[in-house]
Amino acid sequence: MEFQLDDAKAVLRRTPATLEILLTDLPEQLLRSNEGPDTWSPFDILGHLIHGEETDWIPRARIIVEHGEGRAFEPFDRFAMFVKSKGKSLGELLATFARLRSESLQQLDAMNLTPGLLSKRGLHPELGVVTLSQLLSTWVVHDLGHIGQIVRVMSKQYGDAVGPWREYLPVLSR
Amino acid sequence: MEFQLDDAKAVLRRTPATLEILLTDLPEQLLRSNEGPDTWSPFDILGHLIHGEETDWIPRARIIVEHGEGRAFEPFDRFAMFVKSKGKSLGELLATFARLRSESLQQLDAMNLTPGLLSKRGLHPELGVVTLSQLLSTWVVHDLGHIGQIVRVMSKQYGDAVGPWREYLPVLSR
Repeated sequence: MEFQLDDAKAVLRRTPATLEILLTDLPEQLLRSNEGPDTWSPFDILGHLIHGEETDWIPRARIIVEHGEGRAFEPFDRFAMFVKSKGKSLGELLATFARLRSESLQQLDAMNLTPGLLSKRGLHPELGVVTLSQLLSTWVVHDLGHIGQIVRVMSKQYGDAVGPWREYLPVLSR
Repeated sequence: MEFQLDDAKAVLRRTPATLEILLTDLPEQLLRSNEGPDTWSPFDILGHLIHGEETDWIPRARIIVEHGEGRAFEPFDRFAMFVKSKGKSLGELLATFARLRSESLQQLDAMNLTPGLLSKRGLHPELGVVTLSQLLSTWVVHDLGHIGQIVRVMSKQYGDAVGPWREYLPVLSR
């Protein structure tokens, strides 16, 4: 599928409300359980999405627009949320994420991205040369992938409760 | 996690609105594309969820309550939606699913399930003996698994657009 900025924004705009509907007022145990050692709970994943809004997507888009390949992105901290989310409620994280995402999309609009800018190149500290449209596509897939991770983690809390049906439920063995 | 009827209902209640927020007014191409031959698009998956409301969850729960192991469930048709969804819009499918799910949950409430009934056994045509609580747990995991499938299928439409980021996005290779 060819990259279309408006389509990407349509997906990005939906993520906070999707997570709000999916997670608000669910039992704490379902929101705070993970898939085992070194894995993330829905609560952790939400903190990770927040950290992405703060340090990844728009900041990197700006670096590409302003500096091109001349300045590599800051590496992204995949564990920052374990400290930053501490003591917060899921409702607080959902509200923070919704606010930050809305601001990110306003900032994206304000960048007035043209096809020329979308194909502009930047420098990823590990992956090397990337383009702005690749960054924005990655933002979309990152959202969708983490929604998928959240429902997978939740489903695993029912791994034993389904009994013999387990073999028909591939999500339980991913 | 021990099975709690109220928690299961809390998840089941959220699925129609989650899908509505996630999918309403997205580009047709994103809603109708699949992962390749013999795979399903978000549109197909929604039809499958509708067919489950009509023929699977509550009908099977009733068979367990009324007949126990004395009567095996009807096998579930995993391909019925290819015919039944034909010519419909995604909006129509979302509305139908929301209505049917709401009815299913009312019927579930009306069954006044006690712990004794939840552990009652039924007969699956292929899996053999199962319990009512296993059926209801499977319903929850089935919902979550298909939400995960929908976001995975959507994310794959961006598989090329992400460029070198592909290796950081496990959802693209599932």
